[in-house]
Amino acid sequence: MELKEALQQLELLQKKMYAYTCAESALYLDSVTVAPKDTAEGRGVALGILAGESQKLITASETGELLEFLREHREELGEPERRETEELWRSYQQMVRIPADEYMEYAMLTNEASDVWHRAKENSDFELFRPVLERLVEFSRKFAGYYDETKKPYDALLNEFERGADMEYLDAFFAEIRAKLVPLIQEIGRAQQIDDSFLHRYYPVEAQRRFSDYLMEVLQLDRGHCTIGETEHPFTLEFNNKDVRITTNYKENSVAESMYSVIHEGGHAKYELGIRDDLQYTCLAGGVSMGVHESQSRFYENIIGRSREFIGAIFPKMQEFFPEQLSDVTAEQMYRAVNRVEPSLIRTEADELTYCLHVMIRYEIEKQLIGGSLEVKDVPEVWNRLYKEYLGVDVPDDRRGCLQDSHWSGGSFGYFPSYALGSAYGAQMLKNMEQDIDVWGPVSRGDLSAVSGWLREKIHQYGSLMEPSEVVKNACGVFEPSAYTEYLTKKYREIYGL
Amino acid sequence: MELKEALQQLELLQKKMYAYTCAESALYLDSVTVAPKDTAEGRGVALGILAGESQKLITASETGELLEFLREHREELGEPERRETEELWRSYQQMVRIPADEYMEYAMLTNEASDVWHRAKENSDFELFRPVLERLVEFSRKFAGYYDETKKPYDALLNEFERGADMEYLDAFFAEIRAKLVPLIQEIGRAQQIDDSFLHRYYPVEAQRRFSDYLMEVLQLDRGHCTIGETEHPFTLEFNNKDVRITTNYKENSVAESMYSVIHEGGHAKYELGIRDDLQYTCLAGGVSMGVHESQSRFYENIIGRSREFIGAIFPKMQEFFPEQLSDVTAEQMYRAVNRVEPSLIRTEADELTYCLHVMIRYEIEKQLIGGSLEVKDVPEVWNRLYKEYLGVDVPDDRRGCLQDSHWSGGSFGYFPSYALGSAYGAQMLKNMEQDIDVWGPVSRGDLSAVSGWLREKIHQYGSLMEPSEVVKNACGVFEPSAYTEYLTKKYREIYGL
Repeated sequence: MELKEALQQLELLQKKMYAYTCAESALYLDSVTVAPKDTAEGRGVALGILAGESQKLITASETGELLEFLREHREELGEPERRETEELWRSYQQMVRIPADEYMEYAMLTNEASDVWHRAKENSDFELFRPVLERLVEFSRKFAGYYDETKKPYDALLNEFERGADMEYLDAFFAEIRAKLVPLIQEIGRAQQIDDSFLHRYYPVEAQRRFSDYLMEVLQLDRGHCTIGETEHPFTLEFNNKDVRITTNYKENSVAESMYSVIHEGGHAKYELGIRDDLQYTCLAGGVSMGVHESQSRFYENIIGRSREFIGAIFPKMQEFFPEQLSDVTAEQMYRAVNRVEPSLIRTEADELTYCLHVMIRYEIEKQLIGGSLEVKDVPEVWNRLYKEYLGVDVPDDRRGCLQDSHWSGGSFGYFPSYALGSAYGAQMLKNMEQDIDVWGPVSRGDLSAVSGWLREKIHQYGSLMEPSEVVKNACGVFEPSAYTEYLTKKYREIYGL
Repeated sequence: MELKEALQQLELLQKKMYAYTCAESALYLDSVTVAPKDTAEGRGVALGILAGESQKLITASETGELLEFLREHREELGEPERRETEELWRSYQQMVRIPADEYMEYAMLTNEASDVWHRAKENSDFELFRPVLERLVEFSRKFAGYYDETKKPYDALLNEFERGADMEYLDAFFAEIRAKLVPLIQEIGRAQQIDDSFLHRYYPVEAQRRFSDYLMEVLQLDRGHCTIGETEHPFTLEFNNKDVRITTNYKENSVAESMYSVIHEGGHAKYELGIRDDLQYTCLAGGVSMGVHESQSRFYENIIGRSREFIGAIFPKMQEFFPEQLSDVTAEQMYRAVNRVEPSLIRTEADELTYCLHVMIRYEIEKQLIGGSLEVKDVPEVWNRLYKEYLGVDVPDDRRGCLQDSHWSGGSFGYFPSYALGSAYGAQMLKNMEQDIDVWGPVSRGDLSAVSGWLREKIHQYGSLMEPSEVVKNACGVFEPSAYTEYLTKKYREIYGL
């Protein structure tokens, strides 16, 4: 084989993978937006075939031979081809190590588990979910060995979502969180609470839609390349760096919910839209890791979107969209309301400060589950105990307790920590950004272009061209969890007058 | 190979083809509904790859071997497998006869032609389109030979859209049309014209949307399996018999336009939704031909939807949706207004009676173009002459003349006649239906279930299990174009009091 031919094959292989991903994305997007409701069966048939074809492609012996050839010629490869080869080789190696029958069995299990979890959650019946969860834990332990037999199982799983992160890294991270934030939250609990009742007045959906359009403008999301839709659960879906969709969900009695969904998903979208053109249609075209992706969405949502400067900038406009609802409210009251801290039961509804404790609880449970020191049957008890210990709340039932998240039912163990890591990366990025540019001057005028430009230069453009840890280093320097706890401590002590 | 294994492979082959079709459909649907506008490039990359994969699948030597094996064992095959094998064999044979480089060149040409046609139409500049059209005609002649070298080229092309139809069949059909309808239209031209001005009052889109929902109910289209959307050009898109989408387009000054789009596309949807479960995910799962499909959409649109009984049934409800616009209108006035005959320039806006003459003009031109007795450069002149001769209208420019339709730019020669054939099949179906069941009693009460039931039994359920001509025979008996001209003559002489 000639190198030139091999490079053409590399390009074609990746375009095929891109095409399968596009197909799956389009079918998924359709299913959660306009598809008639009783159509899951036929879609399932198509998705099953497409997933199979895409798996066949990456595990094909021709693919292995191509990648081996390219690796032998790595000195002659330029970037990004060298990195593409390494990434694909890693996927190839990993996929071929999983026996086909186990992979199939696992796919069927997660498919079944999703249904069972839905029912179990609805009925707050952990016993219904328990046997499935036990099998999922077993599978994950086994798969961890296929992923990387040199690592401890949970480290191997963590590595799938945030390459380079392991228990040592996360233990130190969460130790800092626990030490600094648990007492702070307790202190806030004793302070005078903020009134946010005006956020829950009646906000007509039509006005909220127009407000979202305005937020898209503020975020400088070009509507020619990024649209906003409506789904039950907000998400971001990218086809390529010229075609990204975000969604939100409007509630008439809660204006902040959709507002922060739009900003959060907008942050994910900015990342994908900022990736370099020459990485498109390759395996390097997407954001580099869950943690880094969350760092972007949470940076926009919390660090920018919940800042006094940002609220000050958009509040007059917000009053125009909601004149009756907000005529008796000041920007400062709005700032305080969207930063109200209140320990609660549900992770996805948590405020900026308590959020990472929800994640920490899941981390501790997963670590023990996969490590073997906790049995599935004991999960609810440990869950409820940790919620009491860290957040001071009593979990009334498993629906609002250990059955609230879908992740485990999809076989995702090791995913949660990336949410907290992302937030922490964001705080440190802010520190560095403030040294490089004037962040708050422009933001206080509603101008996010300097912020966007910095993030694009330090993070977005690279897509997956670098390792997650390199991207983090590029934007944060050496990662120090204390940047995060200091950011939170300073912000919330000021807000609560402590 | 064991027969059992071969049958499993046959099933898998067809499921893969189904999956590719689903993927393409989902991407297409997205592109004409919610996709951001500047996203064609990335979608093109994905669609190109998917089309290539799907073509590779049907032309693979393994596919040929599988089909040959199954054909050798045809006596042992049940239905629908025998028919599936024959259909796939036909596609396989046809595709492998087309040289890959010509197929690629042709794909690129039609892609380019679409752009050129759009610009030519916009500027009413036939000369811009002429060179491309010449190449398309040349390609179509050559491809006709690949399709079936034993047939005359235009017959081979006709056969692609309506298997069994040829020039002899269509010449006889259009001769009847010409003889009976041209004089009738001329006579109507001299009669007192119907007032339809109230159809063009201001009809708010929101009210029209609610009216569409009502029409979906009348058509008994289950929203769990069929949704209605909005696109520039209305269409029906089917994923399978449990998942069909129709679209419409609302104009504030024209209530009938969307109304009849919904009923027309609803007719297509009824067909696809009525196909048997055991044909799903096979090559027999769709409607059998363009002509038969149009027979269903036009049956609902014109024969039912523009009947006095149907209008009588829905008009009181229609007045509820549009109280201000229709308070001074009677059901009879509405009936006459939606049946107003007026020779015009644009096929897609033509009334029931003049519609087939638009088609006849295209048929005559295509026949001569592909047959070689007409040169592309002379198309505008012949077009304009025939519009004057058959419809009595002067074509002011090519935009409203021979550049109006997209079909030729997509390389579709031989497609148009199926529109007229479909209408004619419908008229004959009505004749047979009236002998079997009470059609008009239930329709006059707004109950279409008997009509639907008959069509489902005679046509829909079979999908592509039978040849188009067999389906037509099953529903019409021996096809006689006079049933169509008699239906039209009777209806329109009565309306115009001739």
